[in-house]
Amino acid sequence: MTIAFTTELPREGFQRLVERGLGDWSLVKPHPTSAYRGGEEMEEWQEAEILVSTFDYRVPREMMETMPNLRLIANFGAGYNNIDLSACRERGIIVTNTPQPVVEPTAELAFALMIDVARRVSEFDREIRKGLSNPPRNGDELCYPIPFGVMRHLSHSLYGKTLGIIGMGRIGQSLARRAIASGMRVIYHNRKPVEVPRDKVPSTKDWRAEVIEVPRDKVPSTKDWLAEVIRQAEYVDFQTILQDSDYLSLNLPYTPEVHHIIGKPELGMMKRSAYLINTARGAHVDEKALVEALQNGIIAGAALDVYENEPAIHPELLRLPNVVLSPHTGTGTWEGRIAMCENVCDNIIAYLDGRTEEMDIVM
Amino acid sequence: MTIAFTTELPREGFQRLVERGLGDWSLVKPHPTSAYRGGEEMEEWQEAEILVSTFDYRVPREMMETMPNLRLIANFGAGYNNIDLSACRERGIIVTNTPQPVVEPTAELAFALMIDVARRVSEFDREIRKGLSNPPRNGDELCYPIPFGVMRHLSHSLYGKTLGIIGMGRIGQSLARRAIASGMRVIYHNRKPVEVPRDKVPSTKDWRAEVIEVPRDKVPSTKDWLAEVIRQAEYVDFQTILQDSDYLSLNLPYTPEVHHIIGKPELGMMKRSAYLINTARGAHVDEKALVEALQNGIIAGAALDVYENEPAIHPELLRLPNVVLSPHTGTGTWEGRIAMCENVCDNIIAYLDGRTEEMDIVM
Repeated sequence: MTIAFTTELPREGFQRLVERGLGDWSLVKPHPTSAYRGGEEMEEWQEAEILVSTFDYRVPREMMETMPNLRLIANFGAGYNNIDLSACRERGIIVTNTPQPVVEPTAELAFALMIDVARRVSEFDREIRKGLSNPPRNGDELCYPIPFGVMRHLSHSLYGKTLGIIGMGRIGQSLARRAIASGMRVIYHNRKPVEVPRDKVPSTKDWRAEVIEVPRDKVPSTKDWLAEVIRQAEYVDFQTILQDSDYLSLNLPYTPEVHHIIGKPELGMMKRSAYLINTARGAHVDEKALVEALQNGIIAGAALDVYENEPAIHPELLRLPNVVLSPHTGTGTWEGRIAMCENVCDNIIAYLDGRTEEMDIVM
Repeated sequence: MTIAFTTELPREGFQRLVERGLGDWSLVKPHPTSAYRGGEEMEEWQEAEILVSTFDYRVPREMMETMPNLRLIANFGAGYNNIDLSACRERGIIVTNTPQPVVEPTAELAFALMIDVARRVSEFDREIRKGLSNPPRNGDELCYPIPFGVMRHLSHSLYGKTLGIIGMGRIGQSLARRAIASGMRVIYHNRKPVEVPRDKVPSTKDWRAEVIEVPRDKVPSTKDWLAEVIRQAEYVDFQTILQDSDYLSLNLPYTPEVHHIIGKPELGMMKRSAYLINTARGAHVDEKALVEALQNGIIAGAALDVYENEPAIHPELLRLPNVVLSPHTGTGTWEGRIAMCENVCDNIIAYLDGRTEEMDIVM
C-alpha cells in the first residue's frame, strides 16, 4: 500500500497508520509554489492508491491523471477547494476532509485577534519594543521605552459589547461560547437561522459539564454545547448585523456568492467604532475598500488572518496602527495540526476497512 | 464644596457629580513625575474637603498637610498603596477605592495576554510588518511580507490546557470564567481555598442567565457567577500549581510577603512548555531571573503588563520574541475608566449623604 503525501506533516500525527502496519508510505515534498507542476518527483508515487493533500496544495486533474490507482484523497483541512472535485467525480475518487479538529483552534484565533485589536496588545508591544532604538548604555541597565499613565494607552473592552458573527457554523458557535463568557451579547447572520433539533438541546447542566470536563487526550465533540449557544445567540438580518455589531467576525465558508460580502457599502453601514475580524477567507472582503475605510475612520480597526491575494497583503495594511495581521494560521497550533493528522489517519483506516459511514466524505 | 483632582480624568465620568450640583471642583493636573512635590499649583486646592487621587499618583503625608480641610480621599483604582494610610489614620481621613469596575477589564487583559503569547499574535504581526522594509514599487502593488504555509507559524492552543491562577480573588475568578469557556482546566492557589457560603452558590441556571444577560448600561455585579466558577476550579498547593500549569497567571495583590513569589527556584519548577502571565504587580516576579529563564528555555514564554521598576523595563525583555509586553494597562479601557470615575462619584455622593455603609471604604 502506497500513500502519497503532498506536504511534509509531523510523523507523530500518523502513529495510527504505523500501528496498522502502514508505515511504508511515500513522502513527497511539495513544489515551493504549493501547486502541482508535474515533473520527476511525481514518479515515485504513481502507484499510490491514497493521496494525503493539504488545504494549501492544489490537486488539479493533470496531477490525478499521473496516478492511475488513486481511489482516495484524504485532504488535511476543513476546506477542500484545492481539489478538482469534478475530476474526482468522473474517476470515482473519494474525497475526505478534517472538519472537527479545526473548530477550536480557529475559533480561538478569531477570539485572539478580536481581543488583541480591542485591547491594542500588538500595537502596545510594538511601541514598547521601539524603545530598543534608544537602548540603555549597557546590558544591565533598565530602559524606559514609553511613558506609563492612567489616561495613556486606553483601549476598548469586549465586556458588554455586541459581537456579530456572519456564518454561525461550528467555528462561529465556538467563538460565540467564548464571547458569552466574556460578557458579550452575540448576534449572528446566516442564510437562515440555525435549527437545533429539539431532542438535541441539552440541559444547561450537561452543557456546563462538557465545558468543564474537557478530555485532555483528544478533541471532544462540541455539538452539545453548541446547541446551547445557539439558543442564546440572536438571529438578525444582514443589515442589522452590519449596523449593530461592535465587533463583526466572518466565519462563513467561501463560495462565489459571498465574494466581497464586505465591501465599501457594507463597511459604510458599520459603526465608526466597530472592528472587523476575518479568519475565514480573504475574498470575503474587498481588501482595497477595507484599507480605505480604515484610513478614513469609517470603521475603528480590523484583525485579519486571511487576505484576498495570499500570501500577498495590501501594503497599506502593514502601515496602519489599528490593524492586527496574522499569516493564515487559524488552525495552526501544534495540537490542532496533530489532531488534523489523526483525523486523516482515521479517514484512511475507515476507508481500508470499508467503514465509509465513519469517514468525513465531502464527495 | 471643593473637590481636588490629582489627575485629569474624563469629565463624562463625573456626570453624577454635576447632577448633584457639584460641578465647581478644582481640577489640578499632576506633576509630570506623577508624584507630589509641593509648589504653587497646590495653592488653589488647599480648601478641598475631598481629594480624587489616581492609583499612580503618590499622596504622601506632606501633601495632606497642605490640605487642612481634607476628609475624604476617593482613590481612582483598586489598589491604594499610593496613599500614606498611617497619615490618614491619624487625621481621620476616609479612603475609598474602586474595586468593582477594575475586575472585568483586568481579567480581560490577562486573558488577552495569555492567548496572544500562546497564539503568537503580536509576534506574527511584528514579522508581517517587517515586510515594509522591502516594500512594493508603488502604492497599488501588493507586498509579500512572509511566506505562508501549512507547517509554518505554528503556535499553541489554550484548549485542553491547564491554567493555574495564583490569587483567586475577583479578577482571578473572572479570568477563570473565560478560561473554562475556552476549554481549559483551571487550578488555583491562594493562602487558603476560597470559601463560597452555601447559600450563595447559585444554581447553574442562574449563573448562565447572568452571563448571558449583561446589562449594557452598567457593569453588573459578578459575585454570582464567580461562586459557580469557584465550584469548578481546583485548589492546589503552591508546588503543584508551579508544576502542573501550562499557563500560570498572577492575580494576587502585592504585599511584602509575596515579593518575588516567582523567582529563579519557582521558574525552575515550571514546565519548560509553560507561559507566565503577570497583570498584578511587577514586584511579584524577579525580573532578572525571568529574563534568564526565557533566554535559557526554562519556560516557553511570558506576557507582562507590569514590571519590577515601572515604567522601566529590563531591556532584554524587549529583545525576546517569546514575550508580549503591555504598558500597565490592565484596567485601561475607556469603558473601564468611565466606570471607575462613576465609582468615585458614588463614593463621594454616599460620603456627602452620610451613607458610609455604601462606600468602598478601605480605611
